Amino acid sequence: MIQKLIANIKKTNAPIVVGLDPMLSYIPESITKAAFAEYGETLEGAAEAIWQFNKKIVDAVYDLIPAVKPQIAMYEQYGLPGLAVFKRTVDYCQEKGLVVIGDVKRGDIGSTSAAYAAAHLGRVQVGSQLLTPFGEDFATVNPYLGTDGIKPFLDVCREEKKGIFVLVKTSNPSSGEFQDRLLINPSAETAAEDGFVSGKADSCKPLYEVVGEKVAEWAESCMGDDYSYVGAVVGATYPEMGKILRRVMPKSFILVPGYGAQGGKAKDLAPYFNEDGLGAIVNSSRGIIAAYRQEKYASFGADHFAEASRAAVVDMIKDINQALER
Amino acid sequence: MIQKLIANIKKTNAPIVVGLDPMLSYIPESITKAAFAEYGETLEGAAEAIWQFNKKIVDAVYDLIPAVKPQIAMYEQYGLPGLAVFKRTVDYCQEKGLVVIGDVKRGDIGSTSAAYAAAHLGRVQVGSQLLTPFGEDFATVNPYLGTDGIKPFLDVCREEKKGIFVLVKTSNPSSGEFQDRLLINPSAETAAEDGFVSGKADSCKPLYEVVGEKVAEWAESCMGDDYSYVGAVVGATYPEMGKILRRVMPKSFILVPGYGAQGGKAKDLAPYFNEDGLGAIVNSSRGIIAAYRQEKYASFGADHFAEASRAAVVDMIKDINQALER
Repeated sequence: MIQKLIANIKKTNAPIVVGLDPMLSYIPESITKAAFAEYGETLEGAAEAIWQFNKKIVDAVYDLIPAVKPQIAMYEQYGLPGLAVFKRTVDYCQEKGLVVIGDVKRGDIGSTSAAYAAAHLGRVQVGSQLLTPFGEDFATVNPYLGTDGIKPFLDVCREEKKGIFVLVKTSNPSSGEFQDRLLINPSAETAAEDGFVSGKADSCKPLYEVVGEKVAEWAESCMGDDYSYVGAVVGATYPEMGKILRRVMPKSFILVPGYGAQGGKAKDLAPYFNEDGLGAIVNSSRGIIAAYRQEKYASFGADHFAEASRAAVVDMIKDINQALER
Repeated sequence: MIQKLIANIKKTNAPIVVGLDPMLSYIPESITKAAFAEYGETLEGAAEAIWQFNKKIVDAVYDLIPAVKPQIAMYEQYGLPGLAVFKRTVDYCQEKGLVVIGDVKRGDIGSTSAAYAAAHLGRVQVGSQLLTPFGEDFATVNPYLGTDGIKPFLDVCREEKKGIFVLVKTSNPSSGEFQDRLLINPSAETAAEDGFVSGKADSCKPLYEVVGEKVAEWAESCMGDDYSYVGAVVGATYPEMGKILRRVMPKSFILVPGYGAQGGKAKDLAPYFNEDGLGAIVNSSRGIIAAYRQEKYASFGADHFAEASRAAVVDMIKDINQALER
């Protein structure tokens, strides 16, 4: 699937991904009204509104972009009907030729992580049948539990030629609380346990870099042609760290959230890419799917929200390619 | 809900929780056969088998225990029908008076974490209605993204009187990869950035302790009567760390996985409790729900798996209370 992602990026010349993270407040009233009229003010009604909204946006932008990233939390909050629309969105986007990155941030251990991997990337055995639960192409994964949590995903990635993006440095303001803390290198730990730490700063590294090194190790064990099935999430809001992490994880695609609405600028994104012009894919969610609510695209009007999204995609591609000078 | 958890523990004199983590391989053939006969070898068939299995176990043990902990991954892997049975299990256990800890290990940022919190602990607004998506009483949460990821859960906990257990030190073998790494204290970080680190070991702390300190801070901001709505997950397999973390997070209930099948022993669990005899709840999943497959309970036979589970619960309560001398 990493091959398909790369092929799609080359075809569209657009290293971007549209985050399908619908909030009911983004959805024009004409859509919610019709959905509530049919299903009532119920979870089913909310889910139907999201589906109609998603479908129109996907129809309007699919030829311009390589991939979409539905954020499952935005569906999960509408319970089972919400998750049914998550699945429907995954299927519909795949029919349109898009690579689907399930932003699920799952992570557990052993057989539990294996179950998540099967749920989102793999298949599950029921009697003599192998069935596909959600069937995304990539999934985002949380590394806090260590290799035990990641290995079951790697096994499924190899088997199904799917991929993961491991959270390394997230885009949010408080991501540094744990991720930026300096760790003492293992070689210095014995000294620390003996009561003293002393040495150069190169015996220290921030947690995100240590996680990045693990990602590089996992990536090596799970290679496609030029890039690995194992990528990483590194926020656009921390370009200095992005530069370091690009070097630490040379074979990994970097999924970059935080562009646009969260404050990340295109000019800062060049260091996330490799010299081959590949290696990163920049996400925008709100900035695209709720474009019609921005002053810049307000003239489209709520009923033409999908055209506003298309215009925002065109602008984003231009913005990023200019910054990359391509 | 922390009050209800405490009341249930006192009533049953059993600081334990049964993990409802069904694998198809645990389920006696008579159940899977009937489910497949009705629904085929489909996701619906698997989900029906899980439901029948869960229901019999809950019916057999609910009067002995304060709480259950369904692991959502085991349901998610059977797609939408699996998640429908997760919801059905949550509802059924609550009807039986049990506290339900959704082992969902969710965690994201801002509006996304708010969506997860609504999905599992809160309600969601649809038009003029406030609806309940999954409605567990507690949820497990991953701390890697920092306070931005936790705060939306705290808001919902306060509003709905629900609770969370934050992953601090997990029970798996590789949990130490990141969680045990020694961090330099912030006061020493400036020195490190200047090129040197030097000082006593008390200027270093493992990541799990730093996360534990954050949990204590979040817990203070979200108190019930004697205990906080904010608890922590600390594996039974690391009792030395459990002892430290008990002290670091005095107001937090500790959810303790890893007893039994994963190797944690009752005699090691006393330090996870406070002097009031409360403050911890020990989980067993496989050891209870698949008890009939152990030599010790094999005489029950597959058709009496639920009675075997009841016997295993009785033994577990005895084992833990003996170790706590109560």
